[in-house]
Amino acid sequence: MANDYTTLVLLRPLLETLAIEAPAVCVRLQALHDDFADRIRRDDADLALVSEQLCTKFLPGFPRHAMYEDRFMACAWSGNPAFCQPSSLDLPAVALRAVRHRCAPNLADHALDELNVTRRIEIRTESQLLVPYLLTRTPPVAVIPERLALSAADAAQLSIAEAPVPLPGLRDAAVWHPRDSGDAAHEWQRLEHAASALRPATMPPA
Amino acid sequence: MANDYTTLVLLRPLLETLAIEAPAVCVRLQALHDDFADRIRRDDADLALVSEQLCTKFLPGFPRHAMYEDRFMACAWSGNPAFCQPSSLDLPAVALRAVRHRCAPNLADHALDELNVTRRIEIRTESQLLVPYLLTRTPPVAVIPERLALSAADAAQLSIAEAPVPLPGLRDAAVWHPRDSGDAAHEWQRLEHAASALRPATMPPA
Repeated sequence: MANDYTTLVLLRPLLETLAIEAPAVCVRLQALHDDFADRIRRDDADLALVSEQLCTKFLPGFPRHAMYEDRFMACAWSGNPAFCQPSSLDLPAVALRAVRHRCAPNLADHALDELNVTRRIEIRTESQLLVPYLLTRTPPVAVIPERLALSAADAAQLSIAEAPVPLPGLRDAAVWHPRDSGDAAHEWQRLEHAASALRPATMPPA
Repeated sequence: MANDYTTLVLLRPLLETLAIEAPAVCVRLQALHDDFADRIRRDDADLALVSEQLCTKFLPGFPRHAMYEDRFMACAWSGNPAFCQPSSLDLPAVALRAVRHRCAPNLADHALDELNVTRRIEIRTESQLLVPYLLTRTPPVAVIPERLALSAADAAQLSIAEAPVPLPGLRDAAVWHPRDSGDAAHEWQRLEHAASALRPATMPPA
């Protein structure tokens, strides 16, 4: 279980490896819903890829493996006249906000709210993967993970700059049921996840 | 309300137009969930973009506007040796299947099932937008809308060919509560949707 963006960044490379090393394996990629913790508790899914905060909150004591670190960057369409780095980074009055599942709050927006950074939300979307493309030829600025920004920078014609205020890093972990910890195939899968997290931040195919 | 792919193809161009013609308008893009028909009945969302079949089934008699026609194509990674057009199109034994919400079944898979086209499902995903990227450097073939295939063809290194069997076309409609029919802004929005449906099948930015 993973959100669409994590699926593309972390799980897609795993599919390539699986196609070579374990071609008989079938993979079911599932969206992260509010019941992700219940499903892990029931051992109804092999792994959930979620933020470490959610692991701690909903599955304390469950085995987990740090998978992924990223940082939030400010992005806008490269033709957006109001977005020039670095001087206007404290200016963006318009931002995208991904309205996510309750279980997967938008950490960037949460942090900006906590820092009392006011912004006029012009577009809301539930899909993080869509955010870069919604910036093209529109005025908003979005604060999104750097890997997502880099992956879509060419196709979505993005400019990327430091976030306007210091934001906490993004740390995703794989979490699973303890019953699966000794399973060799499962262990291999976790290692593959970890390996793909270390790869450079290019997305779809190189 | 729309799925992620429809959001990118139909709603993204609307955002560009809105940014110029109605910059004060805020847009909330919502994922298509099982309660889409209830929400339209309650007039809790302006529009749902769904297949005409779903409109007829869940919202009979509600005003709607045909938005979008497409056809299903067979796609695979361009380096996939088992996929060469047109001779091997009856061969692909492996396919992707998007496991969608109950309210938005995968029409291609439904049609293939009805035609008794057996296939070994190697990867399942809930996000139609991800499907092209999951093909890159992996063996499966997927049957997806042509616009989606064309939009991702370069980035995902896809080969595209006629579907192995004749499949019904894809027809999406915008559906809304009758109370909104006379609303001028709403009418304009519907027209914009219709206009963007007529644009060429290129995706993100040109």
